[in-house]
Amino acid sequence: MNTTGRFFRCTTFGESHGRAIGAVVDGCPAGIEFSKDDLMPLMERRRPGKSPLSTARSESDNVEILSGIFEGKTTGTPVAMVIRNENFRSGDYDELKDVFRPGHADYTYHEKYGIRDYRGGGRSSGRETAGRVMAGALAMKLLAREGISFSGNILRIHGEKNPDLFENEILSAKKSGDSVGGIVEISIKGCPAGLGDPVFGKLDASLAGVMMSIGAVKGVEIGDGFLSAGAFGSENNDCMDMSGFLSNHCGGILGGISNGNEIVVRIAVKPTPSIEKEQKTIDTSGSDRMISVGGRHDPCIVPRIVVVAESMAALTVADALLAQKVQQFLR
Amino acid sequence: MNTTGRFFRCTTFGESHGRAIGAVVDGCPAGIEFSKDDLMPLMERRRPGKSPLSTARSESDNVEILSGIFEGKTTGTPVAMVIRNENFRSGDYDELKDVFRPGHADYTYHEKYGIRDYRGGGRSSGRETAGRVMAGALAMKLLAREGISFSGNILRIHGEKNPDLFENEILSAKKSGDSVGGIVEISIKGCPAGLGDPVFGKLDASLAGVMMSIGAVKGVEIGDGFLSAGAFGSENNDCMDMSGFLSNHCGGILGGISNGNEIVVRIAVKPTPSIEKEQKTIDTSGSDRMISVGGRHDPCIVPRIVVVAESMAALTVADALLAQKVQQFLR
Amino acid sequence: MNTTGRFFRCTTFGESHGRAIGAVVDGCPAGIEFSKDDLMPLMERRRPGKSPLSTARSESDNVEILSGIFEGKTTGTPVAMVIRNENFRSGDYDELKDVFRPGHADYTYHEKYGIRDYRGGGRSSGRETAGRVMAGALAMKLLAREGISFSGNILRIHGEKNPDLFENEILSAKKSGDSVGGIVEISIKGCPAGLGDPVFGKLDASLAGVMMSIGAVKGVEIGDGFLSAGAFGSENNDCMDMSGFLSNHCGGILGGISNGNEIVVRIAVKPTPSIEKEQKTIDTSGSDRMISVGGRHDPCIVPRIVVVAESMAALTVADALLAQKVQQFLR
Amino acid sequence: MNTTGRFFRCTTFGESHGRAIGAVVDGCPAGIEFSKDDLMPLMERRRPGKSPLSTARSESDNVEILSGIFEGKTTGTPVAMVIRNENFRSGDYDELKDVFRPGHADYTYHEKYGIRDYRGGGRSSGRETAGRVMAGALAMKLLAREGISFSGNILRIHGEKNPDLFENEILSAKKSGDSVGGIVEISIKGCPAGLGDPVFGKLDASLAGVMMSIGAVKGVEIGDGFLSAGAFGSENNDCMDMSGFLSNHCGGILGGISNGNEIVVRIAVKPTPSIEKEQKTIDTSGSDRMISVGGRHDPCIVPRIVVVAESMAALTVADALLAQKVQQFLR
Repeated sequence: MNTTGRFFRCTTFGESHGRAIGAVVDGCPAGIEFSKDDLMPLMERRRPGKSPLSTARSESDNVEILSGIFEGKTTGTPVAMVIRNENFRSGDYDELKDVFRPGHADYTYHEKYGIRDYRGGGRSSGRETAGRVMAGALAMKLLAREGISFSGNILRIHGEKNPDLFENEILSAKKSGDSVGGIVEISIKGCPAGLGDPVFGKLDASLAGVMMSIGAVKGVEIGDGFLSAGAFGSENNDCMDMSGFLSNHCGGILGGISNGNEIVVRIAVKPTPSIEKEQKTIDTSGSDRMISVGGRHDPCIVPRIVVVAESMAALTVADALLAQKVQQFLR
Repeated sequence: MNTTGRFFRCTTFGESHGRAIGAVVDGCPAGIEFSKDDLMPLMERRRPGKSPLSTARSESDNVEILSGIFEGKTTGTPVAMVIRNENFRSGDYDELKDVFRPGHADYTYHEKYGIRDYRGGGRSSGRETAGRVMAGALAMKLLAREGISFSGNILRIHGEKNPDLFENEILSAKKSGDSVGGIVEISIKGCPAGLGDPVFGKLDASLAGVMMSIGAVKGVEIGDGFLSAGAFGSENNDCMDMSGFLSNHCGGILGGISNGNEIVVRIAVKPTPSIEKEQKTIDTSGSDRMISVGGRHDPCIVPRIVVVAESMAALTVADALLAQKVQQFLR
Repeated sequence: MNTTGRFFRCTTFGESHGRAIGAVVDGCPAGIEFSKDDLMPLMERRRPGKSPLSTARSESDNVEILSGIFEGKTTGTPVAMVIRNENFRSGDYDELKDVFRPGHADYTYHEKYGIRDYRGGGRSSGRETAGRVMAGALAMKLLAREGISFSGNILRIHGEKNPDLFENEILSAKKSGDSVGGIVEISIKGCPAGLGDPVFGKLDASLAGVMMSIGAVKGVEIGDGFLSAGAFGSENNDCMDMSGFLSNHCGGILGGISNGNEIVVRIAVKPTPSIEKEQKTIDTSGSDRMISVGGRHDPCIVPRIVVVAESMAALTVADALLAQKVQQFLR
Repeated sequence: MNTTGRFFRCTTFGESHGRAIGAVVDGCPAGIEFSKDDLMPLMERRRPGKSPLSTARSESDNVEILSGIFEGKTTGTPVAMVIRNENFRSGDYDELKDVFRPGHADYTYHEKYGIRDYRGGGRSSGRETAGRVMAGALAMKLLAREGISFSGNILRIHGEKNPDLFENEILSAKKSGDSVGGIVEISIKGCPAGLGDPVFGKLDASLAGVMMSIGAVKGVEIGDGFLSAGAFGSENNDCMDMSGFLSNHCGGILGGISNGNEIVVRIAVKPTPSIEKEQKTIDTSGSDRMISVGGRHDPCIVPRIVVVAESMAALTVADALLAQKVQQFLR
């Protein structure tokens, strides 16, 4: 199931070490200006190889738009975007052919499909998120016209909340052959009241679903989230007066519908499973094995995941916005 | 958007104080024994009015199966189930006609639809979840044949983790005209490896989406969830040996696919927004108002939400199971 | 798969001799006035038992609206509608329990599901179309606001093209224990240019799909249809001048999109398979049997199918209209 | 809406004179051997420029498989396929920029989207069907394993039923600056009983929908189709004895479900709208214009449409087969 969205539909494809990775966006209204220039700044934020904190794999991430754009604008037909994979040394992965890396999807893909593209995790690689960012870039362009914007922020790396110390935290983990995770907060500004479709297309439900679909994400919360479980109703309710809402514990969503306030989503990102430290695992024959995952791996995926989460938020809001245009047309 | 699932599809309908509330399940395979006897124990767990902790509204919740069952078994055609609403005193709600209750969906429904069934929250009422439980009962019956079972557990009410003190915590809040929330854990046992459809139909993504679609849920986590954000990779990875996985930090899901272990989902439930304590709000004309929400309301929805969360988990797993039967048929 | 439509979604349920038959419409915008008065004239046109030409089964077809309407208007939540089945003498069908009626779906349901509600054809009965008409009534109400209307017309009964002689044709078949079919034309007026979503949601594709989903329909054509296969391009093209299109060979649809002209759809309806004449068949054990299908059966379903086809056209156009509102919102 | 299918999902993209044209197939089970060798014979049948009867545009139609295949087999992940467009002389189309060609989708795309890729019809070009054939090739490969095969046959070109005279008929139309259409029959052999999902996913409904989604198709019939409207029930019913069905008037589908017999679908193909003969039309400013469409155009699209129709049939049957595997898994 590689399509998300009902109105603004994004289908992604491609494996880490296959020929290409890409996305097809179907349902984007005609008339949106869109070009590679809108894509590349986002792709750049997702790109590995930029710092010692990130994998050394240098991807050019040079997106080509194959369809759906004419004279610089969307035409209402599907927008297909693709990156040719380069610089993949799949030989790196031969030794992983028969062994299941702990914390990775190797074992579950094997169980599900009976066959597995083991090169760099295949479809389960973080590389898959490149397609999400391509599609997200188009969603953001559409939403910018409506005054809706997205920004992401790292709240924590491992136990550290001070951004100045994030790099340290990551390097220290790397040095010990280990990895760390963190927490990212996505803020959506300018979203009008009324987006989200009860009861199964609620805006928070959709956001939770797409956020959790990002590899490495293990938790999602909206507004006060888990904290609200420990609050009294009188503390947690967002009261109103003529000036609007007096607080935003709900994170901008009530009853699954945006209330016009800033929408706040937080995600928990697990530590990268690829680590040098030796770990117990088994191989495809079921025998015990010890494994140390070397090679070019991020000791922390959090910095690169921010733009992916923003993109998923944008896809979700674009979809909800289009749905609401249907709902509103009689008014 | 009142349908969930791609294969095992559940559509719910009905308002709190409308004529009826119900569900239609489409896509359930033929041959499953199913009757009211399978439904009523679950409905009973969701039913209000059972204790001083719960709303005094006494609902008979007498489900009638309208279609899709012949000689005690599903036939492969849609199973429609319905409860006629009784004992609704909609007069209770006339005073709420023009005012937006804090923490409720009153304001957002008004903004979205321009029209609002204000009687007891209409579609945004917790009553809507009755349809989910009806459908969940059928999903559970299907899954029981495959050895898959669901159980829910309250981990916390407000700040309290001791189950013996939960009732106290709720009564104390009620006495002060307030309300409390809590945390519920759902456990799914017997689920085979291989369920879940990357990348947008991952099992954890689907679970997160449906859990967050339950009113009052503000956070979802799988396995270690937010805790995993503070762990090292070497701690968080679930190693394996020939006997299987040596831990279950991932909560039974890797790369969005079940790994054969127990699946663990936790949800954060906010305190009930209906409280007697006076709160600031506005009315439909935009004027300031003070409101105290009297009437029959749960001071804590957590005990009743458990079976709803189990039901949503069952719908999700049923859908993923059917999807996997397609994937596997060649083997 | 008992749901049709992507935006204006209709789910139907119910068997011929089950407890009830009904429909749930999800996605209808809020604010549409809708009541039983809008439903009953259409239901009446579909109703059997009105004349000697039709089955003697007298159905009251008294639709109850269970949800989604408040103070006479749609609220944007699902509209569930239901008819309780009455006057079903299922004893009539005991003799058909083990035998496959020629031309019916008895054999294929048996093969597909391994279990079969044999009472009156169960879900494969024409009674299923009652749900379609309920949903169609709501679609028509929505579309009437946009100036779009539907009308159906019988072009032929068996070989007869003169409407004055249709009754004769049917009675004559009935007398000889046989049945006849015919051709129905549906006209859609007032449809704006721009409806239909290439390439798989083209308006003609959707119309063809839903028309063929009506039991007994074996062919669908748009505009000149099969005749166009024998025309020259110079004859078949609809030229334009400043006043608009100069002909309508295309039946109001070009490239799968409405062109603003009258939309013309024709369907071929097969003769009712239930006939008194003896026919060869087999039973569930595979043995040869002779069968004469007595009881209350239409010798010709064509007159009653007209309103069903109009309803399906309305559902399709409503769906396409909502889709186009999304497409257009930027303009 | 550029995706078709619920289980075996095909998304196509690309314009006639854009950079590329392609398809993404999602939901194909893992383990199917698939390579370019399976694709090219079908692409070759669709390819223009092979004879004087067809457009002179020579397309290499060199498909590249970008994802979803590993070591020669499907992996269960999306299979993306693409052809780079070559040999497009878009200058040819500058004169058509402001004018609506009769019988084409120029006017309706303009009305729908407000913007139009006028180069060779953009997305409404027959070139779009290349993506359908790519996806169809994979569906056929899957179905071949189950013993299901597809073949298409031209029954008529214009008024001519003798295949030896088809070429004559087309050349004669071409000589007079005109074009012709025809009728194609698709036969599906080896399809087991039980495929098709009542009531809106019936096999005949799905086939009708996808066939009508092919540009130029104006009518679809199953089995006896429109002829059945003139038959008596006693003639049209397919009787059975222990050896099976004694006739196949229904075309292999009863109640929307395959009955195990050969499935027979016929489509009416209109004459190519691009003709040299002068025709009245208007331009985008609404002024009257005369137009003669020169350039490289097929005087008859029928021969090339056969493989497209086979491909659409294969996509539909693959989808229905996977759906039935879900239905059957308990047995």
